[in-house]
Amino acid sequence: MPSALPLSAVLLSLLTAPPKAPAAATKDVGPSPQVAERLIGAALTEGHAYARLAELTDGIGPRLSGSEGAEAAVQWAKRSFEADGVKVWLEPVKVPRWVRGEESARVLASAGRFREHPLSIMALGGSVGTPAGGLTAEVIEVRSLDEVAALGDKVKGKIVFFNHAMAEAADYGKYAGLRTRGASVAAKAGAVGALVRSLATASLRSPHTGAMRYEDGVAQVPSASVSVEDAELLHRLLVGGPVKVELKLGCKTLPDADSFNVVAEVKGREKPQEVVLLGAHLDSWDVGTGAHDDGAGVTMVMETARLLAKLKPAPRRTVRVVLFMNEENGLRGGKAYAEAHAAELANHVAALEMDSGGGKPLGVALRAGPGGEELVRPWLRPLEALGAGKMLPGEAGGADISPLIPARVPFVGVRVDSSRYFDVHHSHADTLDKVDPKDLAQSTAALAWVSYVLAEVPGVLPRPEAPPSEAPKAPAAPVGAPKPSAP
Amino acid sequence: MPSALPLSAVLLSLLTAPPKAPAAATKDVGPSPQVAERLIGAALTEGHAYARLAELTDGIGPRLSGSEGAEAAVQWAKRSFEADGVKVWLEPVKVPRWVRGEESARVLASAGRFREHPLSIMALGGSVGTPAGGLTAEVIEVRSLDEVAALGDKVKGKIVFFNHAMAEAADYGKYAGLRTRGASVAAKAGAVGALVRSLATASLRSPHTGAMRYEDGVAQVPSASVSVEDAELLHRLLVGGPVKVELKLGCKTLPDADSFNVVAEVKGREKPQEVVLLGAHLDSWDVGTGAHDDGAGVTMVMETARLLAKLKPAPRRTVRVVLFMNEENGLRGGKAYAEAHAAELANHVAALEMDSGGGKPLGVALRAGPGGEELVRPWLRPLEALGAGKMLPGEAGGADISPLIPARVPFVGVRVDSSRYFDVHHSHADTLDKVDPKDLAQSTAALAWVSYVLAEVPGVLPRPEAPPSEAPKAPAAPVGAPKPSAP
Repeated sequence: MPSALPLSAVLLSLLTAPPKAPAAATKDVGPSPQVAERLIGAALTEGHAYARLAELTDGIGPRLSGSEGAEAAVQWAKRSFEADGVKVWLEPVKVPRWVRGEESARVLASAGRFREHPLSIMALGGSVGTPAGGLTAEVIEVRSLDEVAALGDKVKGKIVFFNHAMAEAADYGKYAGLRTRGASVAAKAGAVGALVRSLATASLRSPHTGAMRYEDGVAQVPSASVSVEDAELLHRLLVGGPVKVELKLGCKTLPDADSFNVVAEVKGREKPQEVVLLGAHLDSWDVGTGAHDDGAGVTMVMETARLLAKLKPAPRRTVRVVLFMNEENGLRGGKAYAEAHAAELANHVAALEMDSGGGKPLGVALRAGPGGEELVRPWLRPLEALGAGKMLPGEAGGADISPLIPARVPFVGVRVDSSRYFDVHHSHADTLDKVDPKDLAQSTAALAWVSYVLAEVPGVLPRPEAPPSEAPKAPAAPVGAPKPSAP
Repeated sequence: MPSALPLSAVLLSLLTAPPKAPAAATKDVGPSPQVAERLIGAALTEGHAYARLAELTDGIGPRLSGSEGAEAAVQWAKRSFEADGVKVWLEPVKVPRWVRGEESARVLASAGRFREHPLSIMALGGSVGTPAGGLTAEVIEVRSLDEVAALGDKVKGKIVFFNHAMAEAADYGKYAGLRTRGASVAAKAGAVGALVRSLATASLRSPHTGAMRYEDGVAQVPSASVSVEDAELLHRLLVGGPVKVELKLGCKTLPDADSFNVVAEVKGREKPQEVVLLGAHLDSWDVGTGAHDDGAGVTMVMETARLLAKLKPAPRRTVRVVLFMNEENGLRGGKAYAEAHAAELANHVAALEMDSGGGKPLGVALRAGPGGEELVRPWLRPLEALGAGKMLPGEAGGADISPLIPARVPFVGVRVDSSRYFDVHHSHADTLDKVDPKDLAQSTAALAWVSYVLAEVPGVLPRPEAPPSEAPKAPAAPVGAPKPSAP
């Protein structure tokens, strides 16, 4: 600590001291209120995170794994960390390379019932294409995966239309399985394709893409999302009798491509081998510019690294930022990190992923052993004026850090308001204008402080039990799913 | 009146009698409270308007003038009036035939500044196409038509980007001129094309089309709307330096086509030569299904005709419903009606157009001579429980009835809540799901009662003065503009 602190800082230090002095206060002061002032003040006033988000979204744009945009984002992130004086390196990741083609769909006219309707659709990521001339089949509507099997032979030769009732962000987890698994479930019952109602909380005829996966040994049938409006149209038309749809998808999967996780770190002053991992994912879908998903997370963790790198002395432990590649359609970056760093995971004292958009901060959640909350809660007071100074129920998580679960790495979540996240998620509308610079700055401030606390607090979070059913390296979250939002 | 009225009806009659007995009450009872009960009850409970709207939007879909959809809508409307027992005929209208083609636009990459971006655009109705390979030019941003001239030579060879600040429905009139006139104003200054920020109050990267017109003797340059998000992107990119856009529009204008106004009427029992005209427009844009614009208006006036046709005795005057063709891109139907019926316009005692969407009713507005309000106000009490029992400020109007202004036909408006109308107006998202059946039923009820009052009330509205500047037959409202919404 400098000896000539201004009086105001000393007063602030007294005012913002945690309610209970931490255990080793006399010889080890722990997280410093002056640092709270510096980190939160800088995050709220300097506007770096939003400026970086504009570079990433307006400057680079979409960055699906294996694309030129993804490669440009890797180089941009590396240059940016260097410009910030943060040590950075690239770690290789082989990524799937899926490309969208021309795509369209229409309801064919039914004499005496209705004229032709175009459908607003987008291929789901990973889908095979249709034959060049498209495929035409009757549509059969279901509301769940189980219903497909129950329909038996009625599904044969049809396009299965997975309808659902998503109304709010919290519903995403309920219905995401229709998108990821629908095509294979339908194909097993003899279907020739799948249409999935977009997982969206707002729509202006705007389809939302996302990952789907084929099960091994099952016929691969084309699968696309359909806008909420067109899902409702299909539902209404089906009430009156058979409905035929023509689907044309030009998408395809190319050979795997070379890409990278971008890893940066601020070395710890006292326990450099202990790592606090801050993650976000650099890839996005190929539509929109991935502003909320996950440009916001990327720029929040980058800005946290920049601010922590300026602290003198450095925090006690190492803070490592990982910009994962391929969260959206493969999780190869998350898996590659867990493999490459297997030997040091026992020293990962916390992992935190920002991947729920750039909304305002709400509080902190944990996935840790008993006593974890008691370690963190005393240090949340500096976030009270941001409305984020509380522990929240629900487990922290994140798709890219889910491969760290078998190693029992404690997870921390800085939760943000995701109530409008699924208005634009995975759609053309996920663009810079949707991110409020105030919210982004406030969540960056919360993240910077929580990250510093984790790196500086004398104790470490107790490690959670590994779930008994957890197979090593299997992701806990569905591919492409953000970590659960606060209720 | 039947002599064996149930007691409840008699009581209702007493309860809902207008506050002041109309002048000729002893020998001429005027609008009947029992009819209020019947019309409002039927409109609110029978669901005909919404069922018809589903037929028009889901069954027929888009219906741009001259298209197969427009012709199908004409035949559907004729059949529907016949099924309702309402006399109907077709009146010929020659309409422009504009067809959209393949269309796309992109911001070209600028080395070191930004990568390529697709732009979400739609050709404006009436625009010429670009050369097949597209046109590429630098973009120059302006905020008004006047600004184009002020820029002088800087506009030469460029695409003029008309940006604006539309935030709410009431702003539509402020900025609609950029869309209708922008291309010619730009071309006069040497521009090669025009991009106009969508006139929208919500956006998920969704462009909104609409009519544009070329001035005689001015070079015709291609003109497209651009989504709000992409307008903001262009604005941000232009801050950093030159921005080049490639625009490809495959649209074109074919020879005029034969079409029709659909005219239906309920003959008056006492003054059949006096006409209360109820208008709406049957054509829509070629995207979406024209549910709010103007399927809602069409089905409200059709349902009003059906309910009035069932009254015995019929209303005193003739109620004539006109489903105009070509409101969106030419107003040929409105002009054709005024010409074909020129001889009887002196007997048009009121004209009313429903063309602000299917929102809930708010009240009644007029464009009449002094004393008009006093004639109407006493009869609005039956609409109080619907929240629509009041006179509203602002003049009534409507694009299709604007050619009746020189004949000094009094205008009446049943105003509806249009606050969310421009979220979907002229876009792919103007679909059935956007219309609330409750709101549509309530506005239909209000329209049915007001129409009956106009046809039954002993006196007639005083005729307004013709505006001194009004050239005969010139439309008062811009083409494609809905009548002004209530504030």
